[in-house]
Amino acid sequence: DRDAPTDWDEAEEFLRQYHAENPGVGDVTARLAEVRAEIAATGTYEHTLDEVTYGAKLAWRNASRCIGRLYWRSLHVLDRRSATTPHEIYAGLVRHLEIASGTDVRPGSRAVRRGAVRPVLSVFAPAKPGRPFARVWNDQLIRYAGYRMPDGATLGDPAQVDFTESMELLGWKGQKTPFDVLPLLVETPEHGMHMYDLPQNVVLEVPLTHPEFGWFAELGLRWYAVPAIANQRLRIGGVDYPLAPFNGWYMGTEIGARNLADADRYNLLPVVADRLGLDTSSETTLWRDRALVELNRAVLHSYERAGVKITDHHTEAARFLEHIRREQRAGREVPADWSWIVPPMSGAATPVFHRYYHEADQRPNFYLDEEAR
Amino acid sequence: DRDAPTDWDEAEEFLRQYHAENPGVGDVTARLAEVRAEIAATGTYEHTLDEVTYGAKLAWRNASRCIGRLYWRSLHVLDRRSATTPHEIYAGLVRHLEIASGTDVRPGSRAVRRGAVRPVLSVFAPAKPGRPFARVWNDQLIRYAGYRMPDGATLGDPAQVDFTESMELLGWKGQKTPFDVLPLLVETPEHGMHMYDLPQNVVLEVPLTHPEFGWFAELGLRWYAVPAIANQRLRIGGVDYPLAPFNGWYMGTEIGARNLADADRYNLLPVVADRLGLDTSSETTLWRDRALVELNRAVLHSYERAGVKITDHHTEAARFLEHIRREQRAGREVPADWSWIVPPMSGAATPVFHRYYHEADQRPNFYLDEEAR
Ligand code: HEM
Ligand code: HEM
Repeated sequence: DRDAPTDWDEAEEFLRQYHAENPGVGDVTARLAEVRAEIAATGTYEHTLDEVTYGAKLAWRNASRCIGRLYWRSLHVLDRRSATTPHEIYAGLVRHLEIASGTDVRPGSRAVRRGAVRPVLSVFAPAKPGRPFARVWNDQLIRYAGYRMPDGATLGDPAQVDFTESMELLGWKGQKTPFDVLPLLVETPEHGMHMYDLPQNVVLEVPLTHPEFGWFAELGLRWYAVPAIANQRLRIGGVDYPLAPFNGWYMGTEIGARNLADADRYNLLPVVADRLGLDTSSETTLWRDRALVELNRAVLHSYERAGVKITDHHTEAARFLEHIRREQRAGREVPADWSWIVPPMSGAATPVFHRYYHEADQRPNFYLDEEAR
Repeated sequence: DRDAPTDWDEAEEFLRQYHAENPGVGDVTARLAEVRAEIAATGTYEHTLDEVTYGAKLAWRNASRCIGRLYWRSLHVLDRRSATTPHEIYAGLVRHLEIASGTDVRPGSRAVRRGAVRPVLSVFAPAKPGRPFARVWNDQLIRYAGYRMPDGATLGDPAQVDFTESMELLGWKGQKTPFDVLPLLVETPEHGMHMYDLPQNVVLEVPLTHPEFGWFAELGLRWYAVPAIANQRLRIGGVDYPLAPFNGWYMGTEIGARNLADADRYNLLPVVADRLGLDTSSETTLWRDRALVELNRAVLHSYERAGVKITDHHTEAARFLEHIRREQRAGREVPADWSWIVPPMSGAATPVFHRYYHEADQRPNFYLDEEAR
């Protein structure tokens, strides 16, 4: 219920957890009294910078579908709660991508490196009870357009066809390549919809080549460096942040075994199999499986060669088990969803396949709202 | 509760379903009255041959973890309810394997073919309330022994080390090859434990070769044709059949992506990768994934070449979706368990990955008892 005041129990639970896990931050009793009074007076309460930062880390730690949680403490949180105009929001998103991809390299700077992808979350203003809020309509900050062609085929990413059509209705014109970066669509209650093209220099991309097969480069494939989910609501201590885009680095299979491989996405397995000269007349030649492996080798190879951070599913699976061990040492269970944690290829060849997980919806967390689907 | 009389509600539900789905079999009211009286008098009731046959088919249809259910109507049920001595049971199991593997070819017979694997279930005597029952201690009718070697390594199937040790304590001596077929251990309340070697001619096996790589044959690998699960209890209409071994044909990944590949089974990915000359110094070369695909190609190729029925995971996944469509046309939901239905390799490259399933425990069904684990 969007009109209801902030839930006190959830606020209290979060504040107690924050203080319990961070003994240095002072007396929880005083803070609880303060928040209680603030909710009574205004219907909600404002997080301190430290609270919202730690809350975002907890949301990541609680993300049951995420295999990448070993480094949850390292999340870099950008406080954009004061951004209100579409342009301020847009500027914040651009800065997010710069920091996340290490494209903000300045001459002489050694602090960051182009391609050194960092986990970043930008937190924009919270939803206030009964009030409309700002949002971004893209599902990720960087996505490739999809165009339905006259012959019924799709150019680009089929998952983005509807969104692309909306952008075109709003006046956007893509180059009609298979990899046109979509504009951002930012909406605020006061200013309505605004469309922005992303500056090229913050959209780090990797052209795909294969460690063995020269012809692979001729396929003209590429993918972007930073998967930044923009359509999930972050909920911390009873407060909803409808705009809180976050990113990690890619696990190769997300690109090579899903985005480029799924039959309803770029559907490249038949193309790669054809170039490999595989016998596709029977499933028992396992041509799909062979093409899948080569496509994924190409992804990992290309990102490594370009100096763009990426991990493979074997490494990330081992890290996730290390995460579970560390959490258990800290006396905590790791909520996890088997069907999301197990990678989409070679499932049983990774150690995360061979066990059960604790299934739980713990808060803080991320939620995909119906509206955003 | 083993001592309780047969549950009337479950009996009634099954009988009504059996009659509803088979309108030709006559009046359910009369049969219900009969069964009700029988339970009142004896504590349980006896299934007709048609009931137990259809009940076994329903148990297969309800097996949420099984991707192979399209052909549930074709299950061949062998009625062994009158077998009581260990030798009678053993003879029934041997006959099961003969029929299942098509090894019962007689000179001049064209009815069956060696390697034409058929789905078969043998139903032995039901458990009577409060009475001990016969059982087979093997988890599958055909399994390879596992031996712990003095150097700590394992020869054969590590999953069978404990069972193999028990067999050795009972006087069995294996050849100490990686693929020694284990004896059957049959126990009846009146006669105790009896151990039987399986006649070689009913254990159809396939030596593994690779369609491209000659060296593959040198690995000396093989696997058996018929996966016959022996340790699950079949429950039909409130009646438990503790001994009801069943088999289908293999889906290749069960052998190539689990039995031969799992780190705690034959663990062959490093061996195959080594022979392939892959760079195993980094996970990002995807050497595990490449070895996995070649191992699975070898399995499918070898079974096909030997004329032993097998299917690949792409074909079986497509069939399963066809099964769901057919069942829906018949007005039924298909209970299914995503994490078992999705194959252990190339998950997202099969259509069963990209959907949700109806999760339900419907009866009749198969159950793995604690004791048997
Ligand atoms: C640091 C590197 C990271 C890696 C390698 C990683 C890996 C993954 C992978 C492979 C998935 C499944 C994606 C899919 O199948 O569609 C996933 C999902 C998810 N991750 Fe991570 N992740 C990382 C960082 C993060 C960060 C920084 C956050 C949030 C602060 C996060 C939150 C989530 C959430 C909420 C999901 C579920 C997404 C959904 O429901 O569609 N992850 N992650
Ligand atoms: C006809 C060909 C068949 C195929 C290709 C097939 C395929 C499979 C596969 C791949 C699994 C998962 C195995 C694993 O991951 O360990 C499975 C499980 C199962 N199948 Fe089938 N199956 C077939 C026939 C049958 C038959 C005839 C029955 C019973 C009458 C049956 C009942 C089951 C059950 C109960 C399980 C779960 C086993 C467990 O809990 O370990 N299947 N099947």
